[in-house]
Amino acid sequence: MHKVIFDTDPGVDDAMALLFLHRHPEVDLIGVTTVFGNVSLDLTTRNAQFLHQEWGISAPIARGADRTIDPLRSDDRAASVVHGLDGLGNIGLPDTIDWPLDPRPAYQFIIDTVRDNPGEVTLIAVGRMTNLALALQADPDFAGLVKEVIVMGGAFDVNGNVTPAAEANIHGDPEAADIIFTTPWKVTIVGLDVTLKTIMTGEYLADMAKSGEKAVQLLSDLSQYYIEFYKSRVGIAGMAVHDSTACVYLVRPDLFILRSGAVRVVCGGIADGETIQAPDSGRKFVGTAWDGQPSQWVCTDVRSGEVLEVIRTALVESRASGA
Amino acid sequence: MHKVIFDTDPGVDDAMALLFLHRHPEVDLIGVTTVFGNVSLDLTTRNAQFLHQEWGISAPIARGADRTIDPLRSDDRAASVVHGLDGLGNIGLPDTIDWPLDPRPAYQFIIDTVRDNPGEVTLIAVGRMTNLALALQADPDFAGLVKEVIVMGGAFDVNGNVTPAAEANIHGDPEAADIIFTTPWKVTIVGLDVTLKTIMTGEYLADMAKSGEKAVQLLSDLSQYYIEFYKSRVGIAGMAVHDSTACVYLVRPDLFILRSGAVRVVCGGIADGETIQAPDSGRKFVGTAWDGQPSQWVCTDVRSGEVLEVIRTALVESRASGA
Repeated sequence: MHKVIFDTDPGVDDAMALLFLHRHPEVDLIGVTTVFGNVSLDLTTRNAQFLHQEWGISAPIARGADRTIDPLRSDDRAASVVHGLDGLGNIGLPDTIDWPLDPRPAYQFIIDTVRDNPGEVTLIAVGRMTNLALALQADPDFAGLVKEVIVMGGAFDVNGNVTPAAEANIHGDPEAADIIFTTPWKVTIVGLDVTLKTIMTGEYLADMAKSGEKAVQLLSDLSQYYIEFYKSRVGIAGMAVHDSTACVYLVRPDLFILRSGAVRVVCGGIADGETIQAPDSGRKFVGTAWDGQPSQWVCTDVRSGEVLEVIRTALVESRASGA
Repeated sequence: MHKVIFDTDPGVDDAMALLFLHRHPEVDLIGVTTVFGNVSLDLTTRNAQFLHQEWGISAPIARGADRTIDPLRSDDRAASVVHGLDGLGNIGLPDTIDWPLDPRPAYQFIIDTVRDNPGEVTLIAVGRMTNLALALQADPDFAGLVKEVIVMGGAFDVNGNVTPAAEANIHGDPEAADIIFTTPWKVTIVGLDVTLKTIMTGEYLADMAKSGEKAVQLLSDLSQYYIEFYKSRVGIAGMAVHDSTACVYLVRPDLFILRSGAVRVVCGGIADGETIQAPDSGRKFVGTAWDGQPSQWVCTDVRSGEVLEVIRTALVESRASGA
């Protein structure tokens, strides 16, 4: 069993990933931490509470950061055009959900939970990496007790999705991401290089919802706004399942091609939030910002059809079989 | 006939490109302008004079910039490790060459020559783009009279060669390159995406030199240091013919795959000198540094074997046939 803390800003594709982690038979979801991003922290936290209530998820929720780790950085890009004003496809949510929150801030919950389970916890971060960076600042030594960090974010050999250079999760807090990537723990980065190849069509989702099961029907309902965004604005017939792809990496790393090398994040300027890797297999440089930084793992390719099948199986079949 | 001004910092592969332009039957080389880069301006100018003398090239030489367009930028990277301390493979050159220089600075020579041949001149820039940027600053309107600008520089879908982000010609004067790319004239960029695929082996060069002809033998002699650099430091058995590849584009654009879109250069920070394109065929962004900038053309792939044959033919066969 993989013990997982899911750091998230739900978010439509976050919702699918949450249900995936909840239902996958090899995953033990031991905590969910929220962060501002796709929408405000109040809304992402409310959305996590809503999804826990609807889907009967018992993992504790800890409320996280509501601003970038550098408080002077201005935050001028909301993603409500992608996820809806409420962050879950404008399906008509109550303003508040009566569902308990852990009393600790997310970064402290992460530190405590990792220290309670040394060497056993995988952190899957699919929003801005602010909570993880705050945890490292508060307790640098806890990094050595984390099993692995899986990040959905970045764009290496492809263009970004917020600017030609930058992907949204990294662009939303570049300094935080740079802290994560330059810490000597194992980070695997599942970015646009693979997630934009992993497109779930509306028909595929509708077919899953036909199982008649309420949880998947809710997922389908809240995804329609997101699918429409991809159709009208990106020209893709379906939704990139960014966050679920990162979660599939946890259980099926064999479906991905990886490249090792130090990773830095551009902070400031026209390429703000760009992720750049110095591949270990490539030319050696001296006197650059990559010198002496730890090698991390970047996904460069994916067997996307099989990733979709892994998602479908976890969401539909494992449930049908009583998992 | 293509009227060409060759803006260059010889430089080993510059030397090959110069001989290519001199000998190709469809090229009318009407001027050579020098710039600091591979080595200092004094040396690149001396090297141009040397090559003109050795090869009987009558095109005028105008001496260009000896520093970046932003005088506050520090220049801490010499490329003598690649090209030799003298810039031509340490073959034992005299300190000075008695060969005439045009009295004008390079940028003025470029402006005057373009204005004398409106719509007819292609500028091929294979060093730092400082001279072209100075020309645009001195006379912005001359841009509209240039037929095309062909640049050797940049790294788009691949890593750089000075840092993981940046290629040497752009890294050497990022502000100048950004001026070139954001000017509304036609720029075609021949960068590492294609030039690192275009490798001439020592055997291929030796075979050309076997023609017994003195000019090609000199080229082979001065290239040995450069070939050794590629072997020992890059792990490539041969030399990337960066600058000649850009010149082949002039006469055989059909050998290249091109992608259009605005191009900007990162100035400052860890990605200093990185080139980033927003492809016209890709996602549309708003509020970025690429908004409203002219589309330029980036080479993304090349039929490199044929490029090498075009070079060989111009250097050896056209000479043998009396061209």
